[in-house]
Amino acid sequence: MKLGVIGLGRMGGNIARRLMKDGHAVVVYDRDGDAVQKLAGEGATASNDLKDMRAKLGDDAIFWVMLPSGKPTEETIRELGELASGGETVIDGGNTFYKDDIRRAKALREKQVHYVDVGTSGGVWGLERGYCMMIGGEKQVIDRLDPIFATLAPGYGSIPRTEGRDSKDDRAERGYIHAGPVGAGHFVKMVHNGIEYGLMEAYAEGFDILANKSSDKLPEEERFTLNLPDVAEVWRRGSVISSWLLDLSAEALAKDAELSRFRGDVADSGEGHWTIEAAMEEAVPAYVLSSALYARYRSRIEHTFGDKLLSAMRYGFGGHVEIPQ
Amino acid sequence: MKLGVIGLGRMGGNIARRLMKDGHAVVVYDRDGDAVQKLAGEGATASNDLKDMRAKLGDDAIFWVMLPSGKPTEETIRELGELASGGETVIDGGNTFYKDDIRRAKALREKQVHYVDVGTSGGVWGLERGYCMMIGGEKQVIDRLDPIFATLAPGYGSIPRTEGRDSKDDRAERGYIHAGPVGAGHFVKMVHNGIEYGLMEAYAEGFDILANKSSDKLPEEERFTLNLPDVAEVWRRGSVISSWLLDLSAEALAKDAELSRFRGDVADSGEGHWTIEAAMEEAVPAYVLSSALYARYRSRIEHTFGDKLLSAMRYGFGGHVEIPQ
Amino acid sequence: MKLGVIGLGRMGGNIARRLMKDGHAVVVYDRDGDAVQKLAGEGATASNDLKDMRAKLGDDAIFWVMLPSGKPTEETIRELGELASGGETVIDGGNTFYKDDIRRAKALREKQVHYVDVGTSGGVWGLERGYCMMIGGEKQVIDRLDPIFATLAPGYGSIPRTEGRDSKDDRAERGYIHAGPVGAGHFVKMVHNGIEYGLMEAYAEGFDILANKSSDKLPEEERFTLNLPDVAEVWRRGSVISSWLLDLSAEALAKDAELSRFRGDVADSGEGHWTIEAAMEEAVPAYVLSSALYARYRSRIEHTFGDKLLSAMRYGFGGHVEIPQ
Amino acid sequence: MKLGVIGLGRMGGNIARRLMKDGHAVVVYDRDGDAVQKLAGEGATASNDLKDMRAKLGDDAIFWVMLPSGKPTEETIRELGELASGGETVIDGGNTFYKDDIRRAKALREKQVHYVDVGTSGGVWGLERGYCMMIGGEKQVIDRLDPIFATLAPGYGSIPRTEGRDSKDDRAERGYIHAGPVGAGHFVKMVHNGIEYGLMEAYAEGFDILANKSSDKLPEEERFTLNLPDVAEVWRRGSVISSWLLDLSAEALAKDAELSRFRGDVADSGEGHWTIEAAMEEAVPAYVLSSALYARYRSRIEHTFGDKLLSAMRYGFGGHVEIPQ
Repeated sequence: MKLGVIGLGRMGGNIARRLMKDGHAVVVYDRDGDAVQKLAGEGATASNDLKDMRAKLGDDAIFWVMLPSGKPTEETIRELGELASGGETVIDGGNTFYKDDIRRAKALREKQVHYVDVGTSGGVWGLERGYCMMIGGEKQVIDRLDPIFATLAPGYGSIPRTEGRDSKDDRAERGYIHAGPVGAGHFVKMVHNGIEYGLMEAYAEGFDILANKSSDKLPEEERFTLNLPDVAEVWRRGSVISSWLLDLSAEALAKDAELSRFRGDVADSGEGHWTIEAAMEEAVPAYVLSSALYARYRSRIEHTFGDKLLSAMRYGFGGHVEIPQ
Repeated sequence: MKLGVIGLGRMGGNIARRLMKDGHAVVVYDRDGDAVQKLAGEGATASNDLKDMRAKLGDDAIFWVMLPSGKPTEETIRELGELASGGETVIDGGNTFYKDDIRRAKALREKQVHYVDVGTSGGVWGLERGYCMMIGGEKQVIDRLDPIFATLAPGYGSIPRTEGRDSKDDRAERGYIHAGPVGAGHFVKMVHNGIEYGLMEAYAEGFDILANKSSDKLPEEERFTLNLPDVAEVWRRGSVISSWLLDLSAEALAKDAELSRFRGDVADSGEGHWTIEAAMEEAVPAYVLSSALYARYRSRIEHTFGDKLLSAMRYGFGGHVEIPQ
Repeated sequence: MKLGVIGLGRMGGNIARRLMKDGHAVVVYDRDGDAVQKLAGEGATASNDLKDMRAKLGDDAIFWVMLPSGKPTEETIRELGELASGGETVIDGGNTFYKDDIRRAKALREKQVHYVDVGTSGGVWGLERGYCMMIGGEKQVIDRLDPIFATLAPGYGSIPRTEGRDSKDDRAERGYIHAGPVGAGHFVKMVHNGIEYGLMEAYAEGFDILANKSSDKLPEEERFTLNLPDVAEVWRRGSVISSWLLDLSAEALAKDAELSRFRGDVADSGEGHWTIEAAMEEAVPAYVLSSALYARYRSRIEHTFGDKLLSAMRYGFGGHVEIPQ
Repeated sequence: MKLGVIGLGRMGGNIARRLMKDGHAVVVYDRDGDAVQKLAGEGATASNDLKDMRAKLGDDAIFWVMLPSGKPTEETIRELGELASGGETVIDGGNTFYKDDIRRAKALREKQVHYVDVGTSGGVWGLERGYCMMIGGEKQVIDRLDPIFATLAPGYGSIPRTEGRDSKDDRAERGYIHAGPVGAGHFVKMVHNGIEYGLMEAYAEGFDILANKSSDKLPEEERFTLNLPDVAEVWRRGSVISSWLLDLSAEALAKDAELSRFRGDVADSGEGHWTIEAAMEEAVPAYVLSSALYARYRSRIEHTFGDKLLSAMRYGFGGHVEIPQ
């Protein structure tokens, strides 16, 4: 198929490459002209701006927007709406909040423009491994785009089949699903990232307990100096907690058992936050996912105001003196 | 009554004073001779060591041990057991783990020595306000000691009566209870402290949210610079969350709205930890009490090893780079 | 002063009464005519609808809206805006989300109508004890309304003064504060309720641990059958965790130690949820306040879908069989 | 090598089989004579009791104890100690608390008996996939037993190698490690299970949020009826959260999207609890691992006493009435 890719960062560039490798015709655009030229050198058609891209794609143009969520995506999609003459399809492959998808799709529908939201997982590994995609939108539109998704997805690969799937939609086994109407793709991806936070924090806490087992505050015979790279490695082998995140942990620890390259100021993006909002809207208890998010906030704060208040109360009722600042 | 007070720190000294003020005869001992002399100057009988105290108290001696929990208390009670000839009563008024009470009482029982555990709340304010006491031990022993508990307790005071208590044990209304067999006093006090951690952290988080509402990361019209001393004060007046801990918070904030005297390294003592152990033994979910305890651990750590592992995983799957140490 | 009270439920009715008792002239309206007649019988001026109330209040009318948050409040305030000729003041005394205040105030400002948000705590006890109020709005407007707030607030009462407040705004000591611009009143009240959830859950978990200490799953010598009414009562006396919520707990337990009148399906209103949203917007870790909210969600669910998935995974890796449904 | 396997349940039986398949000579014992006969039929040497097994193994006998932790394991190991003449090795392959290992090893050392603790992961899949083992004990003893561990472990298999391990102990890559002195094996396994609880709960909460997205309490355009089997399947393909636990979830959901075979009463074994104890001993914040444990406790309770107390307080301050029991 022919489509435009807008945004040639780590994700967008590799998406364009993976599409071209499989024979799709790709028109590219990025604010950064060098990025455009680089892809043009690899076989893509360069474009100067969205209007130019629109012209080069012709009627029923398909735009894959792969930009940071928030303002960059919002403005690009608005501009695409303005350029549109009807029949176009706008795919948002970024990390957009699903309620923004619903709002945008409604606005574009009035101009006969289709909107598709694609939650994309795979990070820097996607070019090689393929992208896992969760897609929201109208059935006929998604069906028409199928060759694109089939190319970008990992495919069956060597992953053992899940028993009981014979009569089921095989797109899931090839790495993409049509999750539901507009917004459903990003919603599923959002929850995916919420889970990711929880999984990561579970490993983080566990390795923290292992790392601190050598503390000299413990009775001597209960102190162990554990080899964390070996522990992470052995857990990859037949244990219940083997996972890709564990593979990454094992690799990081194998390179540096102290992880001294990392300070531990952990960023969070919108998905963790939105997942908790969704849980609250549904009245679903999400203790673990919230705690995982808060651990990231806390990692970036030296002392909270709340901690100071605890000290102040302790001083108030018990005369407990803490070292002044 | 006549009794010995062992340990003349902040708590023990004031307990001796409150007892003497009400006419009890108090023999005192502390490793620190100056503390002993100070109390002697206020009317107590000094003693040089536990043996001397035993002699000065005579048969059926009553010892109130008010020492740091752990080794100091353990060793003193062992020594009292060795000195005992039968009929004595050992009261542990400190913050002992209730399972240690059960063990010690068993050992002392073989020597016909009674053991009573008293969980004592009231902090530095006890001399003036009286001590809230939760007592464990045999009924006859507790009954015999009643004049001591009645003196130490706050008494009815001006606190409004709880409806529905007319036919109930009025000791609770005077500020002490016989909670159950040996260990029950410290168990109830332990849970008291567990709850205290939870209450404190609830205020801490709430004030943290208020304090950060002026952050310039928020949209300008949603930023408020709140007067925390006034907020704390107004909540003392007719609000659902009024409490003594809030009174203390209001006072600390009135003195210094920034709490800049406090760094926020918050200590924890055994009770918070033991409360969680008790919850786990009973399979009771204790999310809030655990989180309150962990907030204190976290307040004393700059970056956890777990935080570094999160950063390492994020680098592994997304190429996210964090500022190196 | 003269003002209209719209909504004569438990809160609104008592607010009207407390105002009249102190000499204010009150015009009342409620969809329920009987509620209007009842207040009229106590000295209020009845009105048939908002237009009638507007007429009876004259220029510069002051409306105190005391309705359920959400649609009822929203529509009433919209209608008041439509009736307004400029110079009126609309006070929202309910539990409105503070961002709705900001939005509404902006709309009303175009019609020269003032908007004031008042977070009100005090529940069913307010008529007698007074209402604790957190107020947001413009300074001149709040100042003009001061006689109303002074009447509704508890006043100094017998609560001991906080040290260090001599040079500070004494309204806080009388039970109300001007928290900041529009929205700030409800924001502070919202966090108040968030804290309330946390405090309540801390007591709930603590009493749960006490109640389960008699479980026959524990070793016999570590089982205690505790008298919870007495425990709650004694903690009211000189303990660190004394509070109004504890007073209420003591009363409930005194009436029925098993709390058998209550099933334990615990409702939550918007404030707990919004407090967590605020924490996330500010990147403040709010472990305890979240957990307290989730405990309420969980109390209303028999088994979560998540629990079933845990069982399914356990069956998958360990062959652990659960009792079938 | 020649060794005895004591306890022929799901785990013990398969361990014996995997050892025999690789040429080891196995003497077996179980209280259940049928289990013994079954293994004898597959090539093992039957024994009637521990004494008989001791005789059949000869000097320097090696015993692999694979029994439920607690009393069965404790008593068997005590009996082996009594039978021992020195030089024997007792391996505890169960889920023993690591402090019990330390205590037992000390006792056995006095009789010149070696003690080795092996934390074993792999569940019902071990016979086929091999067992992931974390081993504690003296170096020479572990080295001597190496052929046994090498057989039981999964071996390199087809799992991609972790970069940076070339110069490291390759046992980890074959699926077993010598974690440290006695107790270290079970300690590492214990933390493994603590992490497992956290991972499982992260998936559970995430799928719960997906499942409840169709709730009719949500605005209609924000409701999605998601195909959970497809979601689980697609996440196995190139997503960041792929793992063995996700594979198992996908399989369970493929068989029954409602998981209606499962009620959701989730059991917990000691390891989750002990992991939290370890975290507290080290003052490591373990929010996620605790929450995961508590979710299991909570899954088995209809209404907690704490929930009732919340309702009682709400009634006390707000007159909120709950549906009576």
